[in-house]
Amino acid sequence: MSDIEIARKANKKPIQEVGAKLGIPSEHLLPYGHDKAKVSAEFIKSVADRPDGNLILVTAINPTPAGEGKTTTTVGLGDGLNAIGKKAAICIREASLGPNFGMKGGAAGGGYAQVVPMEDMNLHFTGDFHAITSAHNLLAAMIDNHIYWGNTLDIDVRRVAWRRVMDMNDRALRQITCSLGGVANGFPREAGFDITVASEVMAILCLAADLDDLKKRLGDMIVAYRRDRSPVYCRDIKADGAMTVLLKDAMQPNLVQTLENNPAFVHGGPFANIAHGCNSVVATKTALKLADYVVTEAGFGADLGAEKFFDIKCRKAGLSPKAVVIVATVRAMKMNGGVKKDALGTENVKAVTEGCANLGRHIENVKKFGVPLVVGINHFVTDTDAEVQAIKDYCAERGVEAILNTHWANGGEGIKETAKKVVELCEGGKAAFKPLYEDGLGLFEKIETIAKSIYRADSVTADKKIKDQLKQWEEAGYGNLPVCMAKTQYSFTTDPNWRGAPTGFDLPIREVRLSAGAGFVVAICGEIMTMPGLPKVPSAEVIGLNANGDIEGLF
Amino acid sequence: MSDIEIARKANKKPIQEVGAKLGIPSEHLLPYGHDKAKVSAEFIKSVADRPDGNLILVTAINPTPAGEGKTTTTVGLGDGLNAIGKKAAICIREASLGPNFGMKGGAAGGGYAQVVPMEDMNLHFTGDFHAITSAHNLLAAMIDNHIYWGNTLDIDVRRVAWRRVMDMNDRALRQITCSLGGVANGFPREAGFDITVASEVMAILCLAADLDDLKKRLGDMIVAYRRDRSPVYCRDIKADGAMTVLLKDAMQPNLVQTLENNPAFVHGGPFANIAHGCNSVVATKTALKLADYVVTEAGFGADLGAEKFFDIKCRKAGLSPKAVVIVATVRAMKMNGGVKKDALGTENVKAVTEGCANLGRHIENVKKFGVPLVVGINHFVTDTDAEVQAIKDYCAERGVEAILNTHWANGGEGIKETAKKVVELCEGGKAAFKPLYEDGLGLFEKIETIAKSIYRADSVTADKKIKDQLKQWEEAGYGNLPVCMAKTQYSFTTDPNWRGAPTGFDLPIREVRLSAGAGFVVAICGEIMTMPGLPKVPSAEVIGLNANGDIEGLF
Repeated sequence: MSDIEIARKANKKPIQEVGAKLGIPSEHLLPYGHDKAKVSAEFIKSVADRPDGNLILVTAINPTPAGEGKTTTTVGLGDGLNAIGKKAAICIREASLGPNFGMKGGAAGGGYAQVVPMEDMNLHFTGDFHAITSAHNLLAAMIDNHIYWGNTLDIDVRRVAWRRVMDMNDRALRQITCSLGGVANGFPREAGFDITVASEVMAILCLAADLDDLKKRLGDMIVAYRRDRSPVYCRDIKADGAMTVLLKDAMQPNLVQTLENNPAFVHGGPFANIAHGCNSVVATKTALKLADYVVTEAGFGADLGAEKFFDIKCRKAGLSPKAVVIVATVRAMKMNGGVKKDALGTENVKAVTEGCANLGRHIENVKKFGVPLVVGINHFVTDTDAEVQAIKDYCAERGVEAILNTHWANGGEGIKETAKKVVELCEGGKAAFKPLYEDGLGLFEKIETIAKSIYRADSVTADKKIKDQLKQWEEAGYGNLPVCMAKTQYSFTTDPNWRGAPTGFDLPIREVRLSAGAGFVVAICGEIMTMPGLPKVPSAEVIGLNANGDIEGLF
Repeated sequence: MSDIEIARKANKKPIQEVGAKLGIPSEHLLPYGHDKAKVSAEFIKSVADRPDGNLILVTAINPTPAGEGKTTTTVGLGDGLNAIGKKAAICIREASLGPNFGMKGGAAGGGYAQVVPMEDMNLHFTGDFHAITSAHNLLAAMIDNHIYWGNTLDIDVRRVAWRRVMDMNDRALRQITCSLGGVANGFPREAGFDITVASEVMAILCLAADLDDLKKRLGDMIVAYRRDRSPVYCRDIKADGAMTVLLKDAMQPNLVQTLENNPAFVHGGPFANIAHGCNSVVATKTALKLADYVVTEAGFGADLGAEKFFDIKCRKAGLSPKAVVIVATVRAMKMNGGVKKDALGTENVKAVTEGCANLGRHIENVKKFGVPLVVGINHFVTDTDAEVQAIKDYCAERGVEAILNTHWANGGEGIKETAKKVVELCEGGKAAFKPLYEDGLGLFEKIETIAKSIYRADSVTADKKIKDQLKQWEEAGYGNLPVCMAKTQYSFTTDPNWRGAPTGFDLPIREVRLSAGAGFVVAICGEIMTMPGLPKVPSAEVIGLNANGDIEGLF
């Protein structure tokens, strides 16, 4: 059965029953249909003084075309922890609408480790992304309106930094000229659209502690510059209050369920390149107040995802993760060992062992953050015992346990051993989380620390212009911010085809950006696309309702 | 107390209790929070064979700056009918988000005749407009994507008729050049954005019988032309299926409640100029299956709103209204009688009587559709008895009863007399609805019929180019469509300052447009703005959350 067929057969419980597992009274669950709900801000406030449960991060090796199953493992582990009698919840990101009309939409997990309702989660869900789009574009409209009515803030129309957003893959909007058509339409200028998940508002929603913090951060955003290069803030445009109103409901985390009816928070979905790629702090913190074990994931492989999870999300939100699961597969190890995609079905123990170099480096990296870890091998039907054993042996030599999981086929039952190991790591008192670098380190030195310590670059190069810009931000008081690396997810280097555990390379920084509201400096190493396009035959062409009213073609 | 203060003190019932009044089982109410729900498509299908209740239209004189209270009367009459023991529901339109950030947001009704929750209805509500925005813009992205990948449909890039939409007042987007920035971004061309309520998708959602009809109508939309002027349809782009998927939930009508806990359907909100300005057919038909009396309204005054309600909505949906309430106020009659806004507080019986000419013409017009009517005088505190009596006398001379209503101050209790009269009209068997013109009449003749019979123009002028265009559409098979007039709402003429009951004027047709999916030909008489701008000091600047978390500045 396909993921969508399994999802449609799910024996979903009313969301109130799922909430009850976490002790959320039904009046504090704001339902969206019968199988989705938001947890009320009042209830979240009421549990603020409770002790926190154990936070577990699921991360992975560098992604390969073979697929690793990070979300599947996250969902499976949540079910596995429940299966061994623990009170556990999962926290994952929301899906972006636009890309689903290009390529087939992503499920939330797969096989028997999925979150439902899958259709809704790949469409409008509870409207959070629409709210972010509205808030973002209200600010854009207010900036142009300010210029139109006299521009008392003295904005340089060539230096409006705030673009517009749409949750759609629409390359035609990447670069536009707006305000054409005469006096009544404003001052013509260059502008453009990004996809909604690239909005700084999205990053802010995912990092804000509450509505007050949200408003403050929105106000802090830099939206334009004057001719003297001094910044104009969202607060100067007076848009922060109205944007907060538009985001009021979206700030409340969404509760859904796994196929095994265990609670799943699905909230927020910032880009994992120009932003930090984690679900919302509000959802994670709420889950920690309500469950003893909270399993979450981070975008891309551990070099980007786990590093940002630790250095941005955990640092800023005061979270202290207790255990990490690094997901690997036999197939992905083979690809890292040099095997082509069409040869993955043939046993090749040597390639698996060679490819484990990639896994090995992620293991070393995660250890630097002071959090104990286990490797979760996500089982594929073509894996041979010898190949699986090769990964286990490789890890054992490095003092790390690797456990084979079959949650894809068997749900929570298939991942109980890993669940028990995770509990052991959490209870063991070994976790001593610390970020990779101190707040006080210089911005360029932070970039160098990540590049050398995590990626293993020999050097980091950047133009004088970029270094000057970083210095200037330090002088303006932004020096204490963490750095958000925007790099290809496929390699430790900036070359997406360089798999394994490369050494002897330089990391060139092409551009730096300041996300003053989200609270990080983005270092861009390579091309970053913030508005995707549709392929020649977009999946939208075959998406439709069948005779039963079911959605076809979306998955 | 202000409208919002009254609304916040509302003693709202759980939406399931409101639905139960209409016999909707709670499993068929898809909740959005505790006070909003969508009625499931399955349930709607299950009641299709039930007999219809009585449909009552609330319309009004030409709007004046004094305010008439059409929605207030619609809500009040629904409560009034319930107050006299009838099973009644109301059907009104959803509010557009964007304009609320320019001027203060509109309440749904006013005083003690309101629909709640007011905040939600002026913000994201149940996400219908966001779904329309997404569906509309998916088609736009697919058109440019088709051109980008080779343009096998041979679209003339100068003749892409499908603009983009955003639910925001953003004049900078009215006219743009898109696809700039080089080969990877497509072929540069002129483009632009309208506000979402101006989308043909909105008009279609409001006229479609069900999801199959929705898909067919979406497919019928003309999105571009070739160099030989032949049309390219949405169906050719293969966007109709995916758009239907995006609109699946939005097609289900929303149920909320009045301050007196009576059921209110709030669904759809097309422009009342380039579209027909009525709530959805699905909501109206569903309400008619579930209630004995259904009160609905139409946009603007009766010359535009009622005419389109009858000639477009009722004709196409097979609805047969049983009674009409024309709303008038002493203040508006005075303005029609020549009194300036700042002198409205002073008694002026003569001006009231003179201004009644406007009301008198609407009375004559409504009679032409074969539906019995009553005039509802919406009471203002400054009205004197003599002024009210002047309206009553004027109507009595024309064989029509005019009744003073105090629902604004007293809720349903204040409009029981009108409610009883409406029941009498519905039960009287006098209603014999017929549209103003036959389907088979020529398109230009349809325009002439409306202009001469409803507006009382002496003549209709149009360029040869316009007449040729109408002929061409007739030859292409669109001759049987009704006409949708886009004219100022403030006057029977095209001059917004010409109040009362003007005669001796010409109606110039500036432009005609074909809404092939919605199923009407739009005749534009004057400037029609499809993307508003924000004022110098937009209300967004003062909108925010107060210390209690309540929204301030939106109302």
